[in-house]
Amino acid sequence: MINPHILTLKPSATLKINQYVQRLKSEGEDIIHFGFGQSPFPVPERLVSEVKGNAHCSSYLPSLGLRELREEIAHFLEKHQQMKVHPEQVLIGPGSKELLFQTILLLEGSFLIPKGSWVSYGPQIQAVNKDFVVLETEFSNNFKLNPEVLEDYCTAHADESKILILNTPNNPSGAVYSGEELQELAKVCKKHDLYVISDEIYSQILFSDNQTSAPSMSVFYPEKTFVFGGLSKVFAAGGYRLGFMILPLTQLKLQAAFHSLFSETFSAVASPIQHAAIVAYSYEESIQKHVTGSVAVLNHLAQYVYDELTAAEIDCTVPQGGFYVTVGFNNFKEKLEDKKLETSQALATYLLQEYKVALLPGIDFYFGPDELFFRLAYVDFDGEKALNAYSTKKEPLDNSFIEMYAPNIVKGIQRLKGFTKNLKEQKLVHDQL
Amino acid sequence: MINPHILTLKPSATLKINQYVQRLKSEGEDIIHFGFGQSPFPVPERLVSEVKGNAHCSSYLPSLGLRELREEIAHFLEKHQQMKVHPEQVLIGPGSKELLFQTILLLEGSFLIPKGSWVSYGPQIQAVNKDFVVLETEFSNNFKLNPEVLEDYCTAHADESKILILNTPNNPSGAVYSGEELQELAKVCKKHDLYVISDEIYSQILFSDNQTSAPSMSVFYPEKTFVFGGLSKVFAAGGYRLGFMILPLTQLKLQAAFHSLFSETFSAVASPIQHAAIVAYSYEESIQKHVTGSVAVLNHLAQYVYDELTAAEIDCTVPQGGFYVTVGFNNFKEKLEDKKLETSQALATYLLQEYKVALLPGIDFYFGPDELFFRLAYVDFDGEKALNAYSTKKEPLDNSFIEMYAPNIVKGIQRLKGFTKNLKEQKLVHDQL
Repeated sequence: MINPHILTLKPSATLKINQYVQRLKSEGEDIIHFGFGQSPFPVPERLVSEVKGNAHCSSYLPSLGLRELREEIAHFLEKHQQMKVHPEQVLIGPGSKELLFQTILLLEGSFLIPKGSWVSYGPQIQAVNKDFVVLETEFSNNFKLNPEVLEDYCTAHADESKILILNTPNNPSGAVYSGEELQELAKVCKKHDLYVISDEIYSQILFSDNQTSAPSMSVFYPEKTFVFGGLSKVFAAGGYRLGFMILPLTQLKLQAAFHSLFSETFSAVASPIQHAAIVAYSYEESIQKHVTGSVAVLNHLAQYVYDELTAAEIDCTVPQGGFYVTVGFNNFKEKLEDKKLETSQALATYLLQEYKVALLPGIDFYFGPDELFFRLAYVDFDGEKALNAYSTKKEPLDNSFIEMYAPNIVKGIQRLKGFTKNLKEQKLVHDQL
Repeated sequence: MINPHILTLKPSATLKINQYVQRLKSEGEDIIHFGFGQSPFPVPERLVSEVKGNAHCSSYLPSLGLRELREEIAHFLEKHQQMKVHPEQVLIGPGSKELLFQTILLLEGSFLIPKGSWVSYGPQIQAVNKDFVVLETEFSNNFKLNPEVLEDYCTAHADESKILILNTPNNPSGAVYSGEELQELAKVCKKHDLYVISDEIYSQILFSDNQTSAPSMSVFYPEKTFVFGGLSKVFAAGGYRLGFMILPLTQLKLQAAFHSLFSETFSAVASPIQHAAIVAYSYEESIQKHVTGSVAVLNHLAQYVYDELTAAEIDCTVPQGGFYVTVGFNNFKEKLEDKKLETSQALATYLLQEYKVALLPGIDFYFGPDELFFRLAYVDFDGEKALNAYSTKKEPLDNSFIEMYAPNIVKGIQRLKGFTKNLKEQKLVHDQL
């Protein structure tokens, strides 16, 4: 017999659309890919040289990770995210996704997912036959979870164990919770004794003049917050497959359970990669410069996307970090209904086929099927060239920078604007008839 | 709440004893380590150079693995294990252990484990809240599963779905099932419609004059046999973390479910490692020579261990492949009872403390607690020097080769012989009193 909870899973929409777009591209279609959220930048050269220098390391490393790496990460988080972390709290895995999965396997209760959250939490929960609930959020609040909504849910379901999943900087909205907002949420979490899974994989990709890392939920609710991070986004090394998690200090007793799980599943992370990660988290100047340069370029693009779409009456969340904004076509709902485009799924397919723009439908991010929201990832550009232009050649971040180094972003945004312009004009024609 | 099935897991005994021995060694103890089953050989130089050459590859690769790697593995298995494999059947993961875990998560039913099987199957099954049954095996048959035992169980439990876990070459016994033996088991599997998980991770580490790979269960029962293999043992690259599984052709419909699981957990295997694995499975002459040289050295050591222990009336399985033999002290049971050493756990601790020899107790391999069997891994030697002496310097594989290149094996075996000699003499003293 086959486990029905897994048989009914679909491949992650994120990876699926990427493969579909690759196919269309290979057939010669000129697709603008706003679907896949991979860092467009090269991996810092220092990490590459560390992988090379440790390529002969073919021994199993400790299941929880190299001690030196765990120390370096603890130090990094203390220095850059104001977290108090002992190396014993740091556990290393082959990507934060795998660590999230194992944590979901370990924790029992109802998982609470704010509407507008990463595509994989739900399927991970489903795969291990557990349940989740979607908590309501609003576009007007950048789809951030309101403490009252959490309070209401917890009060109404006082009897059940609950685990809140937070993601900041957020995928798919690009919103970042402020320290004050996290503090308010922490009060509710504490009152109702919630576990919190805090996915902070984009922490250093923050668009702010005064901070270099997003505030961490663990600072405000250290008791029961599990923090997740990794190399993929900040260090542009998704293909290296290394993530970390931070056990709350009060839950250090769970280390043995994670140790067992790790040693019965992935054993340990690939040795050359662990050695490279030590250098990443040492965050020496060349690497730090690589990250801050990448963030400046992303910030500039994000502003362009936001300004252009907002001017065209397309809903767009305020980008504060990460690679994404959530865009919406609710202002065009009536006109879209005329075209029988009533679900995000139908509209995503329409946009891909008719306008050659790939967006991920909101339904994969826990929106209702007829809420016309989409994730737009603005990373379809040559990050190496753009970073070089900004960091080495000191080219200014203006409109011609975008046209020169991110022409697909411009093209895709203009296509979306063309789409809404056509809708409006059709409406006009319709009215005149 | 915390998942009780995981809280009650212990870290894999294999990894645990390794860490204990490391501690004793760091305290200056002269321990002979027969506990940990890592290849003693270096990773072939061609794989190291491939990791280096692909260190800059930081993009996510396809979840099921690089197409070229899947093709190379299919070709390798056809050429070396007489298997008919289409690349679509080949799935890549971060070690065969992770793939086994996900397969156990996917398949529903009772898992059947022959007594004398790898330490991790049981905890993996327990972690996902499923059940397993231990099938009886005998020392006289090298602890290989007898088809009648399987038939009896299946007849008595006709109503339940069943999954047989086979491991050949076997860990912990070093036994290899012949084609004829697999054929007889296949008949029973077919009759009762079993799934088979066939762990063939040691396939090319075979001590045979006429064959270079152990027979695969999938040749005799292609319908429902899932085959597992990887880089760790054959290519001495445990720290690289890359394994594969072969879906039965008739079960190709499960590919979508695995695709989902992979994309919701580890995403894909580290990119530089996947590129290196392509070269491993191309099995070019230099790599093939590396493997066959390693196997010759292991075979020679295995024979030494077997001959010495058998001469001392210590039970020892006949080594036919892999890194291990299962050794037993049942001939000394009475004398051990006098010393209150009545379980494999107690005796393992005694041997480590008193004779500085680390063996893994049989209880971790599904033996009863008072069956005095142990896994002995004969890999505590410098594989690089030994391989160089044999392959490059053409030194003959004789007794002085062992003394020169594997002195710890000699020392450890002599300590075990000293232990039983002391037991015998104590008996004598006892009789005289």
